[in-house]
Amino acid sequence: MNYYVCLHQEGVSNIPKLIEKAYANNYNVVAISINPNTAPFDPHESDPTYPATILNATDWNSKVIFKLSDVNVDSPNVKLREYSKEILLRDIAWAEHLQNIGSVMVRLRGPENTNLAEIVRSKTKGNWFIQVPITNPEIATFEHRKDATEEDISKAEANDPWTWWNKLRFAVKQSPKVKVVVELNDSDRPNMETIRRWLGEPIEAIIIPSSLFVRNRSNYCVLKKEWQVIIGHFISVRANIIISTNPNDKALSQYADYLKKLINENCDTHALNSYENMLEIPLQPLFDNLDSYTYEVFETDPVKYKLYQDAVQAALLDRVSEEEAKKKLTVVMLLGAGRGPIARAILNAAQITNRQVRLYIIEKNPNAIRTLSHMVKTLWTNKDVHIFSKDMRDFSPPELADILVSELLGSFGDNELSPECLDGALKLLKPDGISIPYKSTSYINPLMSVALHQNVCQLASTVPAFDYGYVVLLKNVYHIDEPQALFEFTHPNREDKIDNTRCKVLTFHVKKDCVMHGVGGYFDTHLYKDICLSINPLTHTAGMFSWFPMFFPTHPRTLKEGDTISIKFSRCIDPDKIWYEWQVVNSPEDWELHNKGGTGYNMRL
Amino acid sequence: MNYYVCLHQEGVSNIPKLIEKAYANNYNVVAISINPNTAPFDPHESDPTYPATILNATDWNSKVIFKLSDVNVDSPNVKLREYSKEILLRDIAWAEHLQNIGSVMVRLRGPENTNLAEIVRSKTKGNWFIQVPITNPEIATFEHRKDATEEDISKAEANDPWTWWNKLRFAVKQSPKVKVVVELNDSDRPNMETIRRWLGEPIEAIIIPSSLFVRNRSNYCVLKKEWQVIIGHFISVRANIIISTNPNDKALSQYADYLKKLINENCDTHALNSYENMLEIPLQPLFDNLDSYTYEVFETDPVKYKLYQDAVQAALLDRVSEEEAKKKLTVVMLLGAGRGPIARAILNAAQITNRQVRLYIIEKNPNAIRTLSHMVKTLWTNKDVHIFSKDMRDFSPPELADILVSELLGSFGDNELSPECLDGALKLLKPDGISIPYKSTSYINPLMSVALHQNVCQLASTVPAFDYGYVVLLKNVYHIDEPQALFEFTHPNREDKIDNTRCKVLTFHVKKDCVMHGVGGYFDTHLYKDICLSINPLTHTAGMFSWFPMFFPTHPRTLKEGDTISIKFSRCIDPDKIWYEWQVVNSPEDWELHNKGGTGYNMRL
Repeated sequence: MNYYVCLHQEGVSNIPKLIEKAYANNYNVVAISINPNTAPFDPHESDPTYPATILNATDWNSKVIFKLSDVNVDSPNVKLREYSKEILLRDIAWAEHLQNIGSVMVRLRGPENTNLAEIVRSKTKGNWFIQVPITNPEIATFEHRKDATEEDISKAEANDPWTWWNKLRFAVKQSPKVKVVVELNDSDRPNMETIRRWLGEPIEAIIIPSSLFVRNRSNYCVLKKEWQVIIGHFISVRANIIISTNPNDKALSQYADYLKKLINENCDTHALNSYENMLEIPLQPLFDNLDSYTYEVFETDPVKYKLYQDAVQAALLDRVSEEEAKKKLTVVMLLGAGRGPIARAILNAAQITNRQVRLYIIEKNPNAIRTLSHMVKTLWTNKDVHIFSKDMRDFSPPELADILVSELLGSFGDNELSPECLDGALKLLKPDGISIPYKSTSYINPLMSVALHQNVCQLASTVPAFDYGYVVLLKNVYHIDEPQALFEFTHPNREDKIDNTRCKVLTFHVKKDCVMHGVGGYFDTHLYKDICLSINPLTHTAGMFSWFPMFFPTHPRTLKEGDTISIKFSRCIDPDKIWYEWQVVNSPEDWELHNKGGTGYNMRL
Repeated sequence: MNYYVCLHQEGVSNIPKLIEKAYANNYNVVAISINPNTAPFDPHESDPTYPATILNATDWNSKVIFKLSDVNVDSPNVKLREYSKEILLRDIAWAEHLQNIGSVMVRLRGPENTNLAEIVRSKTKGNWFIQVPITNPEIATFEHRKDATEEDISKAEANDPWTWWNKLRFAVKQSPKVKVVVELNDSDRPNMETIRRWLGEPIEAIIIPSSLFVRNRSNYCVLKKEWQVIIGHFISVRANIIISTNPNDKALSQYADYLKKLINENCDTHALNSYENMLEIPLQPLFDNLDSYTYEVFETDPVKYKLYQDAVQAALLDRVSEEEAKKKLTVVMLLGAGRGPIARAILNAAQITNRQVRLYIIEKNPNAIRTLSHMVKTLWTNKDVHIFSKDMRDFSPPELADILVSELLGSFGDNELSPECLDGALKLLKPDGISIPYKSTSYINPLMSVALHQNVCQLASTVPAFDYGYVVLLKNVYHIDEPQALFEFTHPNREDKIDNTRCKVLTFHVKKDCVMHGVGGYFDTHLYKDICLSINPLTHTAGMFSWFPMFFPTHPRTLKEGDTISIKFSRCIDPDKIWYEWQVVNSPEDWELHNKGGTGYNMRL
């Protein structure tokens, strides 16, 4: 992962020299005032403080973040306001001239930013970094003020800088070019819920003032454990680092090296990095044939097949005693084998337990059959394995099964239609036969995630994107409340009249002002007894990556601390397809109903 | 540039081994029959010839081009046709299973490919490489046939494989996923016009049979000069190389090394590679302010400013004799200075010629003024230079100019409104004053270019893309005929009533069957006497890259050898804007009129 560590210093007039110093001390970007004069000069003055040619265009673009003049374009004073606008527009024109794309940074001073938002919207060339203090700076001043009342303090606490950003975000129509830079300060350490909420925002970077560093016993500049944890959280969602210090600071390289170490420890490198926050339409393996690439990705999961093997092993030991081991044959049917990883797990289980197993493999993808047949001929010549190139719904078995094994689970449990498939396979099973897995449960919770919302909006120009459910590796996400169990399915289902429709309302609590952008979806499944696979964040099976969570979008609304939010989810069925509908059902009025009639995301039967 | 050199061999059953051999001999891809059995086997047979697992998914994707079975899905024999379809669909299903994106190759056997086109359209996952012999293979057979009549031969010659491809291309709706692979053969060397026409096609690769190689005196495998030239042309438009040989060939690495050398010699590496075939909307410097990045790109042109300097030098010497050199002041006005490169050229010219020059610089971009002012203060302290931050249309000079210098030219000459600007600047000029440049001429010709057409189509979903003119580095282009002069403007224009509208019809000749996709636009300009800048391909100033040509799209139509094609171009003016309209005006009916009323591309005044 490419993070940058940026050096920010005020009052620097020699930009090439600052860049040289920054690079020599292990920084890759500098943040500087676009106008290095301390007092903003006359906006009509064309005399430059520096010419464009001191850096080449590539360097202006890639090595410099411009801090715009710290003026107040939303001042109640008309004269000051107009003057501020002129200054800011001049700054922007100069930044756009120097940088082909580039980035400018501006600091919020309070809740009122209407004029600023208008200026941000009108400059479309580069990126805007909106600098927001993580807590209201006023709070810190009370320490030194004797006149502050309890009321003053609680008023300042209620004036949460996140709300400044939240208001600006809506005013600039949630443009993906506008990102937030969160400014830490040494006088007030925020609580974890405040941190977690920022993780759902489009964080460009955090600003770390050098005063946050302390000297350890070896006289090295380090951060206290508590700050390490906080900064680690930001790093884990790909926030870059801006270190703010004064021009005479001698410890520059120590900060940079320390932060680079912290980045390495927290950056969460894994092979699936490129999937973070990317919306994918869920697979429909019942309808489409998977390709070798998809099979290969799943086959590399280090945990899933081992747990299947454990489950079959335990079932064989329970069902066939040591005495019967030599004589009693267990018929195992594998429904949907792909290129064979679970077949291998079953054969391993048989060998380890020393139980006699006849394995029927039913697979509908003729391309996968080619590879399976080759395995039978080369790897499994002395095994009792039989392959059927069939849709399991049309399969008439030569004998009934003791154990049905399947992996028909999607990220939301039943969304690859395992209930329907396994109900249909009941006819393959002996009366005392079992299914592995025997139970699956889906889970949901409300989420804030600007990144996901922006990705949904991007799709919305071509498809009804708010009526789709997506598979997505959740990264920049704030869990507004913990997941709760939604739908449960058990197998085999021997009820006379099976009804796989479901409908449930779950109620969640809002712990902090935030914006809801959608619903997270997860599942867990019991393979055999207490052998489980889970992608529920509260109980996630360690190391397993076969399933990413799901995301069901809603239109963004700001929620208030203390609110409750009720989410209604339905699993609907008609002769051709199965689909989910979802809706926030809150008094006084319900929000929009999503995917009504399955016109968006649906699973074809 | 990343080219691949691919090894193609038939009848190979061990794919990993072939890849190993290919890599050991310096190839990076292999092309193999997807079904290595010589006779296509029963399409219903699920027994594989090889399993998916012999390669991992990445290798299937990146190292293998699959040749589909050589069956005839357009056979007049119903039974053969249906059987062929089954075989081909089975091949495709297997290829799609093995390759996540991937590429399949199929060979055209003749002009009739209706069913093949339907199959190509229906497989949307990967790329299709359509293999086409460069000349009709039948022609080569006549050498060995005594019964062939003159009529047979001329009939075979008329059955040009390009027309097979052309028909298929329209039948698959010119999908960007369908590219052509041109197959050379040792019995018939095509003429240069045939080669040039292929350069306008979306060429993926050329197939070179090993029989094209001859041994030189050192017993090395080399290509004859004529073939080197032909292959060099294909390489210059980014065609990859497929070498076709038999499994026992011992000279594999010699072919690969030879071709890699040829690639290096012909691949036309330059810093602007990434602009090839990319459509850009022309700049509007009169209306928009350019940024530093754009200035910097132009400033690096190694030729343009030297020619400006030469022109000013020649003019100074002509206008001020050696005797007057010390006393006579020449007033030079530079209209639009950017960050100063032409100002530098003028001051150089003055110094070299030892003539007294007062330079007025008029520049409307306040951001550029910052850098110019800095130059006056630092570089030009002892020069007679004066800067005016003005639109030249509003400028009242302190005195009149002897020489107006400007560079207001776009890729089509007048398309950055230099005629209007220079007419407006006439008031700045002494009665005997001159303009550098003093004449500009635009040129056009009809073009075939599938790549450009596809890029226009991609834009067409959001804008009226066929009503735009584009600036583009022409690469995959066939010049249907040579450019001819279109509009001319001279400066200063001292006519009483100036009319800068223009309208002209130019007639071109079609040398070979082809498809017209649009009109190429170029210009040349005379700076002083015979000192010229030109981007007309016939007279292009060597080494100059400040201007790419223009491209005005038309809707594709097939043209026949011997046709004439008349293109009507108009330069239209209304109070707010100037625009071009273009149209092919051919009997019996005119083609579509593009950009009527300037609703697409226009230049704002």
